[in-house]
Amino acid sequence: MKAGFEKKFKAARDFKLRKHPTDISSAVNAADAKEELKRIRKELSAFQEKMYAHNRYSVLVCLQGMDTSGKDSLIREVFEEFNARGVVVSSFKTPSALELQHDYLWRHAVALPERGKFGVFNRTHYENVLVTRVHPEYLLNERLPGIEKVEDLPGDFWQQRFEQINHFESQLIGNGTILFKFFLHLSKNEQKDRLLRRLEKEKHQWKFSPGDLAERKLWDHYMECYEDAIRHTGSGKAPWYVIPADDKDICRYLVASILLEELKKYKDIRYPEPDKAIKEHIQQYKHQLEQE
Amino acid sequence: MKAGFEKKFKAARDFKLRKHPTDISSAVNAADAKEELKRIRKELSAFQEKMYAHNRYSVLVCLQGMDTSGKDSLIREVFEEFNARGVVVSSFKTPSALELQHDYLWRHAVALPERGKFGVFNRTHYENVLVTRVHPEYLLNERLPGIEKVEDLPGDFWQQRFEQINHFESQLIGNGTILFKFFLHLSKNEQKDRLLRRLEKEKHQWKFSPGDLAERKLWDHYMECYEDAIRHTGSGKAPWYVIPADDKDICRYLVASILLEELKKYKDIRYPEPDKAIKEHIQQYKHQLEQE
Repeated sequence: MKAGFEKKFKAARDFKLRKHPTDISSAVNAADAKEELKRIRKELSAFQEKMYAHNRYSVLVCLQGMDTSGKDSLIREVFEEFNARGVVVSSFKTPSALELQHDYLWRHAVALPERGKFGVFNRTHYENVLVTRVHPEYLLNERLPGIEKVEDLPGDFWQQRFEQINHFESQLIGNGTILFKFFLHLSKNEQKDRLLRRLEKEKHQWKFSPGDLAERKLWDHYMECYEDAIRHTGSGKAPWYVIPADDKDICRYLVASILLEELKKYKDIRYPEPDKAIKEHIQQYKHQLEQE
Repeated sequence: MKAGFEKKFKAARDFKLRKHPTDISSAVNAADAKEELKRIRKELSAFQEKMYAHNRYSVLVCLQGMDTSGKDSLIREVFEEFNARGVVVSSFKTPSALELQHDYLWRHAVALPERGKFGVFNRTHYENVLVTRVHPEYLLNERLPGIEKVEDLPGDFWQQRFEQINHFESQLIGNGTILFKFFLHLSKNEQKDRLLRRLEKEKHQWKFSPGDLAERKLWDHYMECYEDAIRHTGSGKAPWYVIPADDKDICRYLVASILLEELKKYKDIRYPEPDKAIKEHIQQYKHQLEQE
């Protein structure tokens, strides 16, 4: 892809979901994308090794998307070449009782990658302004002071959450985390096909839950929440990328390309120089070993 | 390798380190081992996917070995084909202030793999009967009641730790963790060559620390502590494997082979059957999607 291609997928300040395609297979060849990914993921892995040695930055890759949008298989494919040491994947499901005893950002903070490593959030802190917004009754489990019933929510509640999330992310970025946020943008029709395939393939049936169909009925509400969340949290330093997800090969390729292109900009990430004191004494150390 | 080969590397009850070779390159061809590893790691990855779906067991791979014994590169190579989601690597270095506020097993317990996943400990809870035994003054940082100076240690202190470790492991195994313990058995001479290479290669110099040479001087004491630890904690259910580590390809191949052979014995690990209620309603769900 041409330099600067990634701008096309970046959410603008006046973000409108309908302006972003779910399918670009007429412009990008899926087979080429698949081949290209093989090269890119090797480069990403080499970058991670260097970043591990440098030990100053961490990378956090946030993946959001509707059910069946391909988050799991994207993780498998994009990080295929990584040293297992270099990447930690955290999947966020229904919060546990322990997690609900803390504020909604806590479990995400606990799972942040350490310096030198990549962290991948499979579903993220944004679920707290997505699934929770579609089902505001979930909020009652959070035991927020003064919120005993859904009607107690102040009018600017979601706006407050957007601000809290922006502050959280800005603190991370300000302290050495390189943050990526991807929305895997799937069409409702493609989801139908994927759910049908899940039901048809014996081996994949265990992944199906009747709840998937119930959530699908709320599709439009989810899309409104995504649009609002992305518009309010896609600031300059922590942009959202809205990735056409109807074709899995193209989707994975775009995510990997954006990661690599953005990371290449960090010219200060390099293998550390050996300690000066060590460098000066290298002959002496060698001598010591050779003369044992 | 022939079935049952792994027994050769299992530590016996009357374990003697000198009975275990560090080099078996005359019996095993390194180039063949390297090729074979490619096949085995694919099978291991397929096994992990199944184990993830089954979601009953976890696997904990403990790696111990002297500096330069090849733990890091072994992790990179053996888990190369894994879905990043399926494996979490924890490297244990000098305990932090927070970790020292807890007992010595705490940080290892916190890092245990969840069900369905592989955990790899790069250095393990055994450091507490290895480096800590060679440098008993480190124990004073642990703030154990009644231990104000090294002389306060009771005569059976290490014996007590072995028992605690055995109990810890037996609790894990009894609750669904499949435990592997590998000692990468390196010769002192091979370590010398590897340290020299580390000093010679500009790109690897940052990994060198003068402390490596100081620890090397304590080699024999380390070997005594390894022998004693392995002898006391290599019981039937949690055996130690003592892997010849002078050749990296052979070492990685042996570890991967042992993992695969042992894991294959868990015939109950399989993809889950879909929920009966779901199975009965599949036609109805399909209909619902198709008729939207």
